[in-house]
This record gives sequence, C-alpha cells and structure tokens, in this order.
Amino acid sequence: MHKGVTAGLAQPADTAQGAGEVAHSYRSVRALSEALAAPLSDADATLQSMEDASPAKWHLAHTTWFFETFLLRERVPGYARFSDDWPFLFNSYYESEGARIDRFARGLLSRPTLAEVIAYRAHVDAAMGPLLDDPECAGLIALGLAHEQQHEELLQTDIKHALFQNPLGPALWPPQPRARLAMEGAPAKWIEHSGGTVSIGHDGNGFAFDCEGPRHEVLLQPFAISAALVTNREWDAFIADGGYAQPLLWLSDGWAWVRREGIGAPLYWDGTRHFTLAGWEERDPDVPVTHISYFEADAFAQWAGARLPIEAEWEAVAAASDPASGNQLDRAGPVQPVAEAAPSLFGNCWQWTRSAYLPHPRFRAAEGAVGEYNGKFMSGQFVLKGASCATPRGHSRACYRNFFYPHQRWQFTGLRLAKDM
Amino acid sequence: MHKGVTAGLAQPADTAQGAGEVAHSYRSVRALSEALAAPLSDADATLQSMEDASPAKWHLAHTTWFFETFLLRERVPGYARFSDDWPFLFNSYYESEGARIDRFARGLLSRPTLAEVIAYRAHVDAAMGPLLDDPECAGLIALGLAHEQQHEELLQTDIKHALFQNPLGPALWPPQPRARLAMEGAPAKWIEHSGGTVSIGHDGNGFAFDCEGPRHEVLLQPFAISAALVTNREWDAFIADGGYAQPLLWLSDGWAWVRREGIGAPLYWDGTRHFTLAGWEERDPDVPVTHISYFEADAFAQWAGARLPIEAEWEAVAAASDPASGNQLDRAGPVQPVAEAAPSLFGNCWQWTRSAYLPHPRFRAAEGAVGEYNGKFMSGQFVLKGASCATPRGHSRACYRNFFYPHQRWQFTGLRLAKDM
Amino acid sequence: MHKGVTAGLAQPADTAQGAGEVAHSYRSVRALSEALAAPLSDADATLQSMEDASPAKWHLAHTTWFFETFLLRERVPGYARFSDDWPFLFNSYYESEGARIDRFARGLLSRPTLAEVIAYRAHVDAAMGPLLDDPECAGLIALGLAHEQQHEELLQTDIKHALFQNPLGPALWPPQPRARLAMEGAPAKWIEHSGGTVSIGHDGNGFAFDCEGPRHEVLLQPFAISAALVTNREWDAFIADGGYAQPLLWLSDGWAWVRREGIGAPLYWDGTRHFTLAGWEERDPDVPVTHISYFEADAFAQWAGARLPIEAEWEAVAAASDPASGNQLDRAGPVQPVAEAAPSLFGNCWQWTRSAYLPHPRFRAAEGAVGEYNGKFMSGQFVLKGASCATPRGHSRACYRNFFYPHQRWQFTGLRLAKDM
Amino acid sequence: MHKGVTAGLAQPADTAQGAGEVAHSYRSVRALSEALAAPLSDADATLQSMEDASPAKWHLAHTTWFFETFLLRERVPGYARFSDDWPFLFNSYYESEGARIDRFARGLLSRPTLAEVIAYRAHVDAAMGPLLDDPECAGLIALGLAHEQQHEELLQTDIKHALFQNPLGPALWPPQPRARLAMEGAPAKWIEHSGGTVSIGHDGNGFAFDCEGPRHEVLLQPFAISAALVTNREWDAFIADGGYAQPLLWLSDGWAWVRREGIGAPLYWDGTRHFTLAGWEERDPDVPVTHISYFEADAFAQWAGARLPIEAEWEAVAAASDPASGNQLDRAGPVQPVAEAAPSLFGNCWQWTRSAYLPHPRFRAAEGAVGEYNGKFMSGQFVLKGASCATPRGHSRACYRNFFYPHQRWQFTGLRLAKDM
Repeated sequence: MHKGVTAGLAQPADTAQGAGEVAHSYRSVRALSEALAAPLSDADATLQSMEDASPAKWHLAHTTWFFETFLLRERVPGYARFSDDWPFLFNSYYESEGARIDRFARGLLSRPTLAEVIAYRAHVDAAMGPLLDDPECAGLIALGLAHEQQHEELLQTDIKHALFQNPLGPALWPPQPRARLAMEGAPAKWIEHSGGTVSIGHDGNGFAFDCEGPRHEVLLQPFAISAALVTNREWDAFIADGGYAQPLLWLSDGWAWVRREGIGAPLYWDGTRHFTLAGWEERDPDVPVTHISYFEADAFAQWAGARLPIEAEWEAVAAASDPASGNQLDRAGPVQPVAEAAPSLFGNCWQWTRSAYLPHPRFRAAEGAVGEYNGKFMSGQFVLKGASCATPRGHSRACYRNFFYPHQRWQFTGLRLAKDM
Repeated sequence: MHKGVTAGLAQPADTAQGAGEVAHSYRSVRALSEALAAPLSDADATLQSMEDASPAKWHLAHTTWFFETFLLRERVPGYARFSDDWPFLFNSYYESEGARIDRFARGLLSRPTLAEVIAYRAHVDAAMGPLLDDPECAGLIALGLAHEQQHEELLQTDIKHALFQNPLGPALWPPQPRARLAMEGAPAKWIEHSGGTVSIGHDGNGFAFDCEGPRHEVLLQPFAISAALVTNREWDAFIADGGYAQPLLWLSDGWAWVRREGIGAPLYWDGTRHFTLAGWEERDPDVPVTHISYFEADAFAQWAGARLPIEAEWEAVAAASDPASGNQLDRAGPVQPVAEAAPSLFGNCWQWTRSAYLPHPRFRAAEGAVGEYNGKFMSGQFVLKGASCATPRGHSRACYRNFFYPHQRWQFTGLRLAKDM
Repeated sequence: MHKGVTAGLAQPADTAQGAGEVAHSYRSVRALSEALAAPLSDADATLQSMEDASPAKWHLAHTTWFFETFLLRERVPGYARFSDDWPFLFNSYYESEGARIDRFARGLLSRPTLAEVIAYRAHVDAAMGPLLDDPECAGLIALGLAHEQQHEELLQTDIKHALFQNPLGPALWPPQPRARLAMEGAPAKWIEHSGGTVSIGHDGNGFAFDCEGPRHEVLLQPFAISAALVTNREWDAFIADGGYAQPLLWLSDGWAWVRREGIGAPLYWDGTRHFTLAGWEERDPDVPVTHISYFEADAFAQWAGARLPIEAEWEAVAAASDPASGNQLDRAGPVQPVAEAAPSLFGNCWQWTRSAYLPHPRFRAAEGAVGEYNGKFMSGQFVLKGASCATPRGHSRACYRNFFYPHQRWQFTGLRLAKDM
Repeated sequence: MHKGVTAGLAQPADTAQGAGEVAHSYRSVRALSEALAAPLSDADATLQSMEDASPAKWHLAHTTWFFETFLLRERVPGYARFSDDWPFLFNSYYESEGARIDRFARGLLSRPTLAEVIAYRAHVDAAMGPLLDDPECAGLIALGLAHEQQHEELLQTDIKHALFQNPLGPALWPPQPRARLAMEGAPAKWIEHSGGTVSIGHDGNGFAFDCEGPRHEVLLQPFAISAALVTNREWDAFIADGGYAQPLLWLSDGWAWVRREGIGAPLYWDGTRHFTLAGWEERDPDVPVTHISYFEADAFAQWAGARLPIEAEWEAVAAASDPASGNQLDRAGPVQPVAEAAPSLFGNCWQWTRSAYLPHPRFRAAEGAVGEYNGKFMSGQFVLKGASCATPRGHSRACYRNFFYPHQRWQFTGLRLAKDM
C-alpha cells in the first residue's frame, strides 16, 4: 500500500473459497470502488494533490489493469486489451511490466475521461466472468481484490487530500449526524500481557499478502497496551501543553520535520474544526485522533510517559479479536472515526507501531512480476496495525502489515499507547 | 500578458467607438472565449501543467472577474456578486484586490466546474448589458476586452502545453488540410531602412495598453530586417550544424538553460513531427518555426551571422503594415503557423526582439488597482512584436509590446533576422 | 555517531577503571585526535564537503567543548571558559544546550584557526588534570572519551570525503606498502548457529552507550553468517553482472537513489583505482569492499542469493570474538581495509545489518542534556556492527550499535552475508 | 565582471602606453592584489560563501592564469606551466579553454595553499618580465590588468560576504576613524540636462572593455539627476515608512524576492550597525547607502517619487567628471563609502541604472577565447555606472559598464535618483 500506492502478493493460494464466493467477492469489491467514485466529477477524479497521492481515476483504472494484465492476458486466449496505450498510464511501479508514466504526471491525465475508465472496468469485468469459477484463478483473483481494497482506501484518502486544497472546502458527501457518547472521564484501561514466546505472522490459512508471513515465534517481555485509541481531547491537551514546541519530546528527524513544515496540529485541523469528506466540521473531542504522522505519535507517547507498541505486542493481543469488528468501511460515504463505548482493536484508524517495516524471518519474495511487491519497500517505513474507517470490512487481519514513512499522515492514522510491566 | 498571465491598462480612453460597436465587440470577444473552450471537458479545463500556465477554466473565470470587479461592482448599484468566494480564486496578481490563491494551486480546483464557470459568464454578461451603451464605461470595457483577448491566446497555448503532457497525445480539434506552397529556394529578402530619428510608441488614438506609450523619438542607425520569418527548414539546418552543442553561439544564461533542461529542439518537436492542437502532425519545412525561447532565437541569429532586431527597428518598419493582416485568429480551431507567399510582419508567431521590456521615456503607471498592471513586470523580460496565429485579429498594433522571460517558449514565438547596413 | 555526528550516554558508570587508568586513557585518546589532524593545514581543517560531514577543526573543538561543558563547568569552581562565543559554534545538536550554528555553515568558519583550536584543547586538558583522579568523574570522562573516539573516526572519513572533491587528489599521508595475501579461490566459509534463545545488549559491566542496553533475550532461528567480508573482487563481479542496472535486485528507495544520483560503483571508485587518505591507489581485489550504502549491501546480498544478517544474529556470533582484534586504528595514518588470512568479526569496516536502529526492549533515555543522545535518532536508520580500520582499537564491543541512513556511505562500511539454515 | 566573476575584452589596443608605463602598471596592479590578501589566512582564502562568490585564493590564481594562458603560453617559446593541473581549477568560464571545476566546488580547494598560489604569482610575474616591454603585448596586458582590477574588487566583496557568515564577526582590518561631516539638512541638488542628441560609448582612445563601444548617438529628453547618492538616513526613512511592506512600490519579481528571502533591509545591516571589513560598526546616517539590489533601488525611487537614471543619461552627465575622483581604492584596507561635502559621480558605490545590459548598436564580439567575454552576459542583467570604494582608482570610465542581476547586492551597490524635466 505504498509510496501511497499499492501492494501485496498472495501466499501460495490455498484459499479455500468456493467458486460462487469468488464471484460474489469480485462483484461486491468491484462495485464498492465505483460507489466510492460516484460523487466525483471527471475533474475531481483527475486531481493529484501531491506525489504521494494518485487521481481517483487512476485508482479505478490501475486496479482494473491488474486483472487485465495478470489474469485476462495470461488465461484468456485471444483477449484483446481495451487499449494498447493504457498500460503505460496505469501500471504503478512494476519495473518488470515495462515503462510507465512519472508518478507526479498522473494528475495531468484529463484523458481518458472518468466515463472511459468506467467503460474499461465494465469491459474487464465482462471478460473476467468465466475466470471467476476457475479454481486455478482463485488465488490471483483474491490477490487482485485485496489489492483493489487497498486502493479503495487510498481513493478516499487521496480525494480527501485533493479537496482539502480547494479554498471552497467542497463536500463530497452530505454530512451525517453523529451520535455523541458520554465518554469523558472514562477510566483509561490497559490490556495486560504476560509476555513469553508468542507466534505471529500469517499461518497460511486463507489469503494474506506475502509480507505477512511466515509465521514465527517471538519472545516478548510483559507489557500492557491501552484498550482505547488516543482521542482528539487528549491531543488538544498535548498541544495545550506545548507538545509541538518541546524538542526533547521528538525524534531528531521528527523535530526537523516539525520546523521545516511548520507543523502544529494534525493534518486537516483548523481551530476547532477539521476537514472531512463531508466538508468542514466541528471536531468531536471523544473521537480518536487521526491524520497524525509517526513522528507525532512517538512524541505524544513520550509526552504521555508511555511508548508505542511494537508490532508483535499488538498482534499478540489482537489474536483474540475479531478483525471484522469496529468502525470499518461497509458502504460509500463520508467515513470518519467515531467514539466507541466498547473499543475494538480494529477500525477507526490505523495504529502506528514502533516497529520498522522489515521482513519476517525466512521471508522470501515471490517470483515474477507480482513478486516485485512488498519486499521492495522494506526500508525507512514503520508498520501500522488494525484497520481504519476507510478500510473495507473483511480486508484486514491481526497479521496485516500496513506501512508508511514516518512523516506521512494523509491516511487515517492514529495511535494506541503501550507500556512495560 | 505575464508571468504567462495577463496585462495592460488603457490609455485615458478617448476610444471613439460608438455604443453599438462596444456592444458588438463585447459579444464577439466573449463568444470567442467560449468557442475556444468548446472542445474541452471539465477535466481538460482544470489542468495546469506548469506554474507559467493556468487552467482554461481559470482564464474563463478570471476575465469575467475583471468585468465584475472593475465595472459591475463600481457602476451597478446593488449588483450581487455571483459568488463571494470566487474573487479569491480568480483574482490573478492584483495585490490591491486582496488575497488570492497560490498560482500553482490553480490546477487543483476541480470545483467550481466548467459548467458553473460558464454560468458565471452568462450572469456577468447579462448584468453588463446596460453598461455597454454607457460612454463612461467604454474605456474600461475596451480594456477588459483587450485583456480577455490576451487570455484567449493564453488559453490556447496553455491547453496545448497541458495536453502535450499526456502520452496519448490527445487532439483538441480535428486536423485541417494545409495548403503547401512551393517556397523552397525563394530568395531571402531584406527590408532596408535608412535609420535616423523615428517616432515609436502609441499616439493616443484608440485603445492601447499603458506600456505602449508615450510616443517618443528614437535615433536609429541604418539597418535591414528580413521580410520572412525563420522557417522549420532553416531551424533543421541549425540543428544539423550542431547549433545546440556549440557554447560560443549562446548567451551564458542560455547555455546553462540548454544543459540544465537538456534542450535540443523547439518545444513540441519530436523527430519530424510536432504536437499541435490537432494532436501529433508532420512538420511542414516551409512554415515559420515557433515555440522557441529568446535564448534559442539569439543563438540562431548568431549562427546565421545576423542579429535580432531591436524593438524600435521593428516598429519603424511595421508602421507601414496593416496590423490586422497575416495569419491571426479568426475563429476557434487548431491554429498553427502557415507558409505565406507574401509574408506579413504580423501573424504566425510573436517575434523576439533584442530589447528588454523596460518603460518608454516618461512612462507613468496609472493609479489604482488597474494601474498595478504592466509596469511591475519591467525586469528580466524581452519584448516580442507582431502577433501570432493564436492572437485574435484586431488585438495587436505596431506599438504593441508583448513580453516574456528569455527561457519561456510555450507561446507561439519565432523570429525574424536583422542586420546593420 | 550521527547525522554523521556523535554519540551516546554512559550506563550509570560502574566503570571500574582505576584513577591512573582514567588519566592514561584521557591522554592517549586526546593525543590521538591531534595526531590524526597533524597533516592538516588550517584550510584543510576548515573544509566541509557535505551536510553529513563536519570540518576537522570542528571535531577537535566539539569534543573539547564536551569536557568543558559537562565536566569543567559543572565540577571546577571558577572555571573560565576559553571563549564565551565558542559554545555557539561547537555545540553539535544538543537542543537543551542552547542555540547553535546551522550544520552546513560549519564549513564557513575560517576563524577560529586550527592553531587556536589546538590551544583550546591544551587549555581544557590542563584544567581537566585534577578531575582525572576523581572517581565521581570517571563515568562522564569515559563517556567523553568514547564520544571523542567516535569523532576520531568521523574526522578521518570526513576529511577523506573533502579531499576527494579536489581534482588534484591530494594525499594526506604517504602511501604505505601493503602486503598482498594469496587468497584468491579461498573457500567461502560459513559460521553456523543453531538459533534458540540468546541474550544480547550490554550487560552493565564497563562503559557502553545508553542505546546498547538493556540486555535482553531474543529468539533466533538457525542461521549461518559468512566468516569473511565481501571483497572488491566479488563487488567487481556484481558490477560486471549488471548489478547496478537490475531494478529487481533493489529496494524501491534504493533504486530511486541509484537513478537519481547516477550510482554505479562504491564511493571513491574510479576505474580500477580508489581514493584513499594516501591519494589515488590501485584497488586490491582481495581486500574487503567498503564505502557502500545499505541499499548497495542489500542489493548485493539479493544478487548473491543470500541476505544481510540481523543485529541479534551478528551479536550472538560475535560474543565469542575479541572486539579488540582485527584491522582497527592503532595510530594516525592512511587507514584502509586489508586482506586477512584469518578473518575477524571486528575491524576493516562496519557491517550493515538488516535491523533498523530502534530501542532495545525497556530502553529509557537518560535525563538531562547528555540524555538527549542516542534515542532521538531512532527512525529511518540501520544498525551496523563490528568496527572499521578507522575505529580506535578498544572502542567497540559486540553490543556496539553504529547507525546510519541507508543511502550514506562515506564511512568505512561493508558487508558480511547471512543465510537461513 | 560576472556571475560575480570577471570579464572584458580590449579594444584593438591602440593603447598608447609607453613601455615603462606598462611595466609600472603591471607591478602596481599585481602588488595591490597581494596587499588585499595580506590579512587573510590560508583558511580565509579558501572560503566560498555562495555560488556568486569565489575564494580569495581563486581570484589570485585565476588572474594569474590569464597571463599564463593568453600571454606566456602564446608568446614565450618553451614556457613551462607552473602546474599542468591548475588550469582546470582556475579557468573561470571560458568554454573554449576546456573543462573546469564546478563553480560551487571552488570552496573545497584547500590545496593548493595560499602560499603556493602566491608562489604561482611570483613564477608568472618573473616570466612576464620580458613581455612588459613588448609593444605587441601591450593590449593584452592592459586587458589582463583591467581584468585583475575587477577581481580585486570582487576579492574584497567576496571575502566580506564570507566573513559575514561567521557568528564571531571577524574583522579583516583594524577599524579606521572616520570623519563625520555635518551634512544633515543639506539641500538636495539636481544636475539638469536639456536632452537632445548625445554621444555615448567608448571613443577608441585608450583601453576599454569590448562592451563599452562602439561610440554612438542617442536621443535624450530633458532630465535631471541628483548630485548626491541616496544615504543611509534616507534609507532608514524608507524602511520606517514601510517601504519593504508595500507591494505596489515593487517590481513583480522584486516583491517575490522580498517575500521569498525575507528581505527587510540592505545586506549587512543589523539594527543600527552594519558589517564591514573591519567587523561590525555603527552606521553613519550621512554616508551613501550600499549593498542594495536593483529591486530595492527601483522600489526606493518609486517611493521617492522619482526614477532611476538610464545609462545614457548618467553617461552624458558624467562626461564632464573626472573618473579618477571620489572615494575609490588607493590601497588595501577596510574600504567603505564615506560622506562627501562635494559629491562626485564616481566612487563610494556603483549606481544602478534602469538600463538592461544589452549590446550597444553595431557591437561585435571579438574572435577567439578572449572574445567569449562580455557579450555572453547580455540577458537579464542591469547596468551600473560609476565606481565604488573597492574599485582600484583609474579602473573606471564614464562609458564603463558594470552589470549584475537585479537581486544581487553583495557588491558595493547604491543609487542616485533621476527625474524627467
């Protein structure tokens, strides 16, 4: 999911989904992408507001290019590409799949139009029909759908960033009434863990991206992890206490970033309001804070006298949770974190860990183009766990590894504290 | 017309146009802008491919903002702005008219849509109706229309630059058949001038931008100026002779630019083809070369053993020509230079002179916001004379002063040689 | 030792050095710094060739500022600073010690002169006399000396980088005859380890930097680590096989770096020669390769069908080695890696590991200014183990953690391969 | 003299200096360069504080390279270069003289040392002996000396800029007592000129740089030029009146520069003090302001209701003045503008004109390497007239054309107002 783009390679694919299930998944995932794009004009779908982001149109086409390239081209004799020129436009970063347009030039593609991209999707979906029942294709299709779900999340965060640049503050969706919970003063709860040897990583059952495995043992010391995510209210206290002005709270690179970029609050904050996919709204203090960088998460934990969890700690605790629980994406709309009476480990926002994104022991990249995938991003990034309000429900797992550079914060990113016991 | 944007301030406005004429001009100029934008999608009209350029949508709105701000707001009691937020978006660089969006953020405005901008134009045009017969408004209206004509030219050159970025090479218009003239081998002709004291600058009759005056005398030495513009064929010879590889032909800043940017041909050239508003086409060798920078024009003149004319030389010779002659813009379409049997001083492309864009003697900037205009651009730029295939016919004059930085070349810019006698 | 700079914080200092030993260490470490600077002119000592590096003069003064600030100022009543202005110049990055000069402006300090800096050293050394016998000072002095040893290494690598910029290729020292070993064809040897639970990190006996502890258990899988460092000959084979031209071998950030910087060989290589502190010399193929980035080390390991070791693997194997063995710095001179018949884990060059530089479990930063130290660098960097030919012998340990960004390579950095068993 | 470097080509050299005079000039000019460098340490002489500037050592060697390359190499059979490597280091920008070091890498040349450069000078001076009496060499020697005088001025302004970067504020020379004149309230005086046809440009008698000719006629309108230079007191009033905060006073490029660079005062100003070659001193309000850019000069003139003179106006008025008068450089020392009871047109500081640096009519660049010279700088720069306190007396003339980019201000640059009559 990176360089704000993409990612992942299926495990050998003993994914035991029935044929009907594959077709059902295919149709519902593909439909969700288009539902997310429904309120976009052709011009909206063309915008690219920074190099980390991509146009909505590009996400819609790139995920389709994946099925066309790795399934239709390989498995359907005589399949004719929708357009011979488009692979150059919609390949992302697969060096082995040939030349491609510079990342930052994606925002200059007024053609093809959004309508043409939708037609491209229909063309590919129709051609995919026969493959949906083919067990030999199930693994790659599962990969393609997981890949598309990643882009569904990016489509939302990228268009949010683009619309935020517009002084008119356009709303993509109508605002939704939000129930406020009376949570203030709720006691901080910690989930304790006695440490010892734990197993983490994907166990090979069902789909997972390559980097999630192999499963392996890790030795942990006793620790506790907070049951709830850090909230806007707590972040306001951090700001009020001069959190952004005390160099000793910050990593050296983080402090340089704060000064260079003039950072003083999470992305999208302005006074007591924040920008959402429904335009500018008042912030709810009881809602988990989001759109923070690793640097900010780490400084907050320092300030709070705690630390960020490491990946294995988070995963050990989450083993008991339902990864499909919590505030995740069920349908297109103005997603946002919400206050929860019974907090889940999943949902609302991705949670920064103190673990660098590096290979699990005995990790091996897959062969061939699909194998260019996740291994190549293993320097300089940190792992995030959980799922966010923009993650399609069903996409994530306890062993799921999201990863971003420590300064990036246009995703729905937040934090949960940890401490030694 | 600058920083790729705009420009100009009317002389005190003794413009003796009849009332009906004003209304007629207003309607035809305004209609031409919309005709030029007719083949654009909303997404096309949103693109900004470099800081020098602006989105088509922005040109359409900014020229309308001019009439709303300097005429409707001042002269129509109770006039209600179409939108209170839009001035922030569509002011260009008028410091005295308040804050405005960063130039390079213009390309992130997917909203308002092209359709909304067209509605804005209709709203303002309707409100302007009563003013078109008001003699007191004639001067400012003439200024607004000349201003809009400048943006009509920029709209064409800016969208050309934006579409050029697209690897698909989209055509905005269908290609047009072009008559080829049998011109090869035609003798080079020189227009000779004996020098002496000549008068240049605007004489106060009819509309002109402020920087075109005052009229004043200049002492010239005998010189000659070539009757024809330099052609693609001649430019090919310059390239074949290693013109882009010989540092001694180039100005120091020009040579640094050639190396830094890897320049080896005019903008839009690729092999024997060039990019046009009708997509990629074969170049006609007999057609005047265009899309060259001042640096390139100067190096070519060095190579040819000649020099560029100075502004006063060009203007002295052009005094006898009809400024409405030659290949200029009559209607929306895929404009391009053409070969001419009887070359005109006007039309085809703007011609670089060796004169810096500086004030004429006794030039004074006008007071007030409209007066921020042309004077402020008087450092670092060079004067171009004539008119191009994208200039609305009737817009230019012998004393007209177009100006750009020496590295800029996305306008229809070419050259005509001069020599001492 | 970072941002190419500095340093570390002592464990609580139960350093059981006798008083005489402290004084002896102090004098020999301090003398070595000056011996390293002996061949430098005032101008040499002023050079700063990139932001990562510092002038030699600055290293000499900054290490002295440490003793003046944390020992003399605190412990010697009435001590008068050598100069009240110098702390601003020679503080490195201690936010709590007040303002300091911009890193990259260090190279503009022609004043104070090298001679004045040497006088500063003498002044501080004289004042330090009484403290060398004070057991309460022993911990901080050990820290100051370890800190100075780090800068002794940086002084050598920074001046090497600076002289390399000079087209004259100046030699700092006369070349030394080097014994060539007949090693070609020697069988690659692997040191095998059966994995299981191992203890790593500093055990609290003797001096260590804060980040080296606490000691803790880690669970390892069976692995092997190569007995020898990768050599110039092997690196030549990597280049000959197109190693720098195959994107699939590289991390994504690494490939971007290769293309952006035009990288095609280790730093300081040119043809069959390389630049050394004795000027340009022919490379010896049997000598360990050095001056490579993490990106290069990782790509080489990919190409070789192996991987880099993780920190705990390296440390577990090194527990049995003498950290004072191998090719390390004994006296000032033109240090370089050498071929060894019986390779040591220490010496010749620092070895990249696949482990990010992150805190050991239960790591806590020390309080106060000295505590700003190592924790703040824990994002984006990788751990290197061992010691180099420029490391003062006695400085390093198995638990020692050197760290640099993955693109940096002006240190003596090389690699040792690892593989799963 | 450009890109803060150099420049100039002799007129065909009918310079009627007697042989003894040539030798005398040679020795005194060469001696002055070394006197200016006398207070510099080797490290001082190595500093390069920005790309526009060069190390003192470089100036001393480059001017010597000129004599070695264009005279000794051509005219002395068997002359052996002092070093074969040095031309690569000390060529400035002569494309035809082969490769050369990147401009900004000049500051990394700790070797050769200042002493070696001085030895180089002695070697060349000795070899030049026989040529000083050769009439055929007189023209080129005059050029070389004029060239060296330009670098003498640059040596002073470049080292001033470099020492200014040092927080210690080092003084190169001891401060000099300065007589203060009681000038406050002195009436502003204007020198009036009735306009008409005037001749400007070099008339061919004696040495001049190529760009100063040919002499030609220009038609002027009546104007006046202020007898005195603008003072620090007047500049304080400009600041107090918000001069740096009013966009309408500024050229568009100038306003962008003010905001980008955070400009609010002349270079070297801090409160009521300014940095000089004798360190930090209180400013004298009656002394001409200096170290201002064209942008600032133009904005001041706007604010004062006046304008800058054009080159021909200044030159027409200066025809009656002695170019060797005023405050110019007679010997090495801490030069600065001074208050003058009877102001001269020459001396104190170079004066910005409103004229772009473009060729005089019928200007032709000389052939060969020396001819690369001045013509290549003719875009984007403005002409300055007069002479400064750092200009060797005897170097300048009424027709002398100094030129810099409009944002540059590390030279001794000031202004004199003009107005229409």
